[in-house]
Amino acid sequence: MKPIITLTTDFGLTGHYVAQMKGVILSLNPAAHIVDITHAIAPQNIRQGALALRDATPHFPAGSIHVAVVDPGVGTARKVLYAEIAGRHYIAPDNGLLHLLARNSAPARLISIENRDFMRPEVSQTFHGRDIMAPVAAQLSLGVDPAELGPTVSSMQSLDWPAPVVTPTQATGQIVDIDAFGNAITNLHAKHLPNAPQPRGQTVVQAGQWRIAGLHATYGECEIGTLIALVGSSGYLELACVGGSAGERFSLAVGERVTVTWPA
Amino acid sequence: MKPIITLTTDFGLTGHYVAQMKGVILSLNPAAHIVDITHAIAPQNIRQGALALRDATPHFPAGSIHVAVVDPGVGTARKVLYAEIAGRHYIAPDNGLLHLLARNSAPARLISIENRDFMRPEVSQTFHGRDIMAPVAAQLSLGVDPAELGPTVSSMQSLDWPAPVVTPTQATGQIVDIDAFGNAITNLHAKHLPNAPQPRGQTVVQAGQWRIAGLHATYGECEIGTLIALVGSSGYLELACVGGSAGERFSLAVGERVTVTWPA
Amino acid sequence: MKPIITLTTDFGLTGHYVAQMKGVILSLNPAAHIVDITHAIAPQNIRQGALALRDATPHFPAGSIHVAVVDPGVGTARKVLYAEIAGRHYIAPDNGLLHLLARNSAPARLISIENRDFMRPEVSQTFHGRDIMAPVAAQLSLGVDPAELGPTVSSMQSLDWPAPVVTPTQATGQIVDIDAFGNAITNLHAKHLPNAPQPRGQTVVQAGQWRIAGLHATYGECEIGTLIALVGSSGYLELACVGGSAGERFSLAVGERVTVTWPA
Repeated sequence: MKPIITLTTDFGLTGHYVAQMKGVILSLNPAAHIVDITHAIAPQNIRQGALALRDATPHFPAGSIHVAVVDPGVGTARKVLYAEIAGRHYIAPDNGLLHLLARNSAPARLISIENRDFMRPEVSQTFHGRDIMAPVAAQLSLGVDPAELGPTVSSMQSLDWPAPVVTPTQATGQIVDIDAFGNAITNLHAKHLPNAPQPRGQTVVQAGQWRIAGLHATYGECEIGTLIALVGSSGYLELACVGGSAGERFSLAVGERVTVTWPA
Repeated sequence: MKPIITLTTDFGLTGHYVAQMKGVILSLNPAAHIVDITHAIAPQNIRQGALALRDATPHFPAGSIHVAVVDPGVGTARKVLYAEIAGRHYIAPDNGLLHLLARNSAPARLISIENRDFMRPEVSQTFHGRDIMAPVAAQLSLGVDPAELGPTVSSMQSLDWPAPVVTPTQATGQIVDIDAFGNAITNLHAKHLPNAPQPRGQTVVQAGQWRIAGLHATYGECEIGTLIALVGSSGYLELACVGGSAGERFSLAVGERVTVTWPA
Repeated sequence: MKPIITLTTDFGLTGHYVAQMKGVILSLNPAAHIVDITHAIAPQNIRQGALALRDATPHFPAGSIHVAVVDPGVGTARKVLYAEIAGRHYIAPDNGLLHLLARNSAPARLISIENRDFMRPEVSQTFHGRDIMAPVAAQLSLGVDPAELGPTVSSMQSLDWPAPVVTPTQATGQIVDIDAFGNAITNLHAKHLPNAPQPRGQTVVQAGQWRIAGLHATYGECEIGTLIALVGSSGYLELACVGGSAGERFSLAVGERVTVTWPA
């Protein structure tokens, strides 16, 4: 099987830095199969990068190599990590990018990438994505043992991540991302919410100043412009505006408190 | 030959939903060769999606599998279709997305995708691109017979599409798209227009308030800022502003009437 | 080894013209491995295209085929070139796009692509990227000898490119690009600047109205919002705003004069 290497960065859509990483990877392993996850993480927004990794990478085959570059501390003392999580390989700066993944499944291996044999001969201080992470990914795809990359470490930086508060009749969380459609994604998972259809209809969602009656199953069930609440495709409660952007039309932003209440 | 799967969506350029589809495809068929057609279809703009499919997919090799997700009705009663058109395989919601292709070449096969064996075990109600269309595409690329996907159907949703009116000395149509360069693409095909160079010079194009003398062959023939009419690379009359955006500078928009007149 | 074909264009991120080129390439060589360098070159900005080619393509394996389409003169008398530069194959309109590459390494071969056998049967006058450059690239990837493409030519169009002025204690250049992060890239290479750490600390950079003391090694060394000067990942002096866009916050634009002064 051809090894898959994915890339998640905040490099934006308009430059050629991503292409430089791809060139470095393909120079070392011309058979590598590179897939873009996204390069539109807001600049230096580690939390958004962590969410993209959590939601997208588990859909790739076991054994895939996932490289994430949201790296405001590039060239400073922060480590570059290799982590094996749920049968996948991750390469990322040690700044919390892997926190949400590691919370769902404890890393089987955690290594500080320090062996210069696997880096480009000249490592710039501003582009470790190209000079360290890309060549390490390529070499893992060629079969290099992660143990050769550097010393094992016992922990990694965590992310300041809001924890939902759940009672038998209420769950309180917050908006953690606004997606490309303007849907407001919360940190409340389906498992925090009532399950049976009956209580769903009697559920009330309060998001900032907005009060929404009931949970819906999909977008097309209501009139254009309606603000609805539903469990999105990654399993988390989201607020969506039918045929529009909930973020824009209802001024919903990251950090806004969301409370779901249902009958006992 | 490695099977090609293309993706055309309105998911935008900034999220990771497209990547989730790619992960699902590659988990089922790691050898699939995935190519993006565009993810910048305006949200829920079925007409624009239909145009992209008409203009781009015929350039791919016969046997390619084309997945299109512009799907405002996701999770409602609308069908998900498999269509074989001109030797290519299409997977799309039944909402008119395939209308322009099917008008050019009648589908050899039309199937309602209903067999859950080819879908993800849990089908969300908000992301059929990932949970139905991606796995079906992957399995077609592995050689699954389309007949296994579900029952044959006899028709599909059509699109409300303007028909040009053509006389021996005049063709009347309208602007159907503004492309990424700001060129205003019409529904008037080269076959509706005078062919010989002589009449071309005497042709007059009226687009909204603008009157353009003659058809040009390419952009670089006139001064910067000139509004010209020419047959574009997909064979349709378009209005272009040399070195600029015709849409912006001349306020041309989808739906604007365009009349071409030439001597008998 | 599977042949790599890269694409660099000003087609933007929202259309399907790039996909048409990919379809044409894959129809001729389904095994081609296509990689996007960027499609966000500002429309018809040859200088920006030349920079992207200079900085990105050398990272790809020798033997790669690089297609560049920034082509305001499409369909006019300008030639379409094949150039072999530093062991790589380039296909581009003859308008200066290859100037910076050719300045770093003289082309080993320069050919005017004229042989219609290697083009699409019908060549439009508005889309040579699809009708000439894509099929030529595909056929080179299949092993066609470049000599078959057309007659050898002895020179190509150059680009009006500013030359730095360097003295033993000063280097004067200008901003030549603003990258996706808002960093202002100059035409002053590290080789024009003082090398030892000591003089670096005593170096002064003047960029428009801004005076910057010292050269830094990376972004994370200063406070958010500081304007710093450093040698970027391609080896050229750049002005960066820590945690922000230097172009926007400090009104730096292409053409702005930049002077670096250091003690004798």
